[in-house]
Amino acid sequence: MADRQALAFTGSRLDRADNLRADPDALAGMMNWKARLLALDGLMPGMDENGGLVWSTLADAAEDAELVFLGLDDGKPCFAAVPPEGDSRPRMANPQLWSLMATLRPDDLALYGGARSVTDWHARHRHCAACGGSTRIVKGGWQRDCANCGAQHFPRTDPVTIMLVEHDGRLLLGRGLGWPERAYSALAGFVEPGESIEEGVAREVLEETGVVVRDVTYIASQPWPFPSQLMIGCHSYTDSDAITLDETELADARWFARDEIAAAMAGEEGAPINTPPAQAIAHHLLDWWLTR
Amino acid sequence: MADRQALAFTGSRLDRADNLRADPDALAGMMNWKARLLALDGLMPGMDENGGLVWSTLADAAEDAELVFLGLDDGKPCFAAVPPEGDSRPRMANPQLWSLMATLRPDDLALYGGARSVTDWHARHRHCAACGGSTRIVKGGWQRDCANCGAQHFPRTDPVTIMLVEHDGRLLLGRGLGWPERAYSALAGFVEPGESIEEGVAREVLEETGVVVRDVTYIASQPWPFPSQLMIGCHSYTDSDAITLDETELADARWFARDEIAAAMAGEEGAPINTPPAQAIAHHLLDWWLTR
Repeated sequence: MADRQALAFTGSRLDRADNLRADPDALAGMMNWKARLLALDGLMPGMDENGGLVWSTLADAAEDAELVFLGLDDGKPCFAAVPPEGDSRPRMANPQLWSLMATLRPDDLALYGGARSVTDWHARHRHCAACGGSTRIVKGGWQRDCANCGAQHFPRTDPVTIMLVEHDGRLLLGRGLGWPERAYSALAGFVEPGESIEEGVAREVLEETGVVVRDVTYIASQPWPFPSQLMIGCHSYTDSDAITLDETELADARWFARDEIAAAMAGEEGAPINTPPAQAIAHHLLDWWLTR
Repeated sequence: MADRQALAFTGSRLDRADNLRADPDALAGMMNWKARLLALDGLMPGMDENGGLVWSTLADAAEDAELVFLGLDDGKPCFAAVPPEGDSRPRMANPQLWSLMATLRPDDLALYGGARSVTDWHARHRHCAACGGSTRIVKGGWQRDCANCGAQHFPRTDPVTIMLVEHDGRLLLGRGLGWPERAYSALAGFVEPGESIEEGVAREVLEETGVVVRDVTYIASQPWPFPSQLMIGCHSYTDSDAITLDETELADARWFARDEIAAAMAGEEGAPINTPPAQAIAHHLLDWWLTR
């Protein structure tokens, strides 16, 4: 898929330099006037006139701020501060963020996505899930340790399957509860403990629509920082197009012909639905399906 | 890969019946004398003379046991109890478990793997990571809620990439720190927030061996319940076989020819290395590579 637009939130130029994380002296040595601090208002980034992220220096961090070492950008150490305790602003993608996602330089968007997921994880993990004690940041922000029981905790990434289901040249798309009337996208759901990617795809489609899939194949993946998913995009087939909707999960699910999806993806006025924005892997999957 | 042995820990016959999880009346209605309780000693299962898991009834659960609804087995509700507080037995795979993994019926092994990951997650999440308050089991064990701040917590699954790296018909395999002298396997590592599967593969191989990969493709996936990984098996190529070992991660990494790997997989006496056991996805990847 080299000739297709790269997926949003991929392509960060940072060297994560994981060998430095476990070296307290190296970490301390990087926290100097040359280090860059990602400008964040809570979890919201700034953008300069060139579509790049805004940076300042560690002098701008709060005295007691927890700092995450993001990696090296052309040799320069980059950090981000964990939002202060008590900052309870919502963490879902908002209209301002969707606008940023369309305008930020792709490599900066990827850098921001990773920084957002990790700093947000720290903000929600100031205590130990095992004993309730206070945790403290270690290894440059890639671990938290419990000061009470010593348990180690690591940033979380949740695998989610998102899948095209094909029958007789048509695709099954769904409309989530509360979505706009014409908004349809690929079905999706979290992979649960005890199942493979392929089993997760089959279970989700069956649960939400009653459709039995076969021949699940992997297409592409994307990190999605709201708060920290790994989107795993797949394709599958089914031998029966009968739908039994789970109305607690979806407002609607329907089969769409190739020309309907092509019209929607082209943004044509007469298109029957609106497909997901270019930043979402669902858009990428539909594009793959139309042009493969 | 339909003609190849299924991956261990896949193929559970349970219907997870997620629609019942959110229905307290339905859950309560299933907790009767017909319900089955998975026999567990801590996290260790029992095995009957037919290679199946051992079950009892809810009457055998401790009065204050937290019960996870695993799903329906041919219509019969199946539960597992969370290990009691203070049970600090180690959670890694032990020799007894490896023996069980080789002898339990495949669908029972898959059922056990999922049950183990979820009950173990509960045992390690009795407190809220956000505020430290006590959490309580809800939705049949597929969620915990904080009694203090109301935060919702969900069972965790950690995506891990595990990859073959190919150069000129040879494969790059590594020996972990503390592994037996002849034990070699595919490189592997956790997917971090802010990267795709393909980016995770490239970063891990570069970190551990200095090798730059290209053309990463997905091969297969497997849940691995120690404690709860999603193993994502990939293949890649490199244009240079120069290795720079990260000695904090690996004891060794070397290139192996096809006949060396074939001899090891066949268990031949003269084989230069030992390859991973059949239950591991690394074995499956090597088998795929030899026979594709």
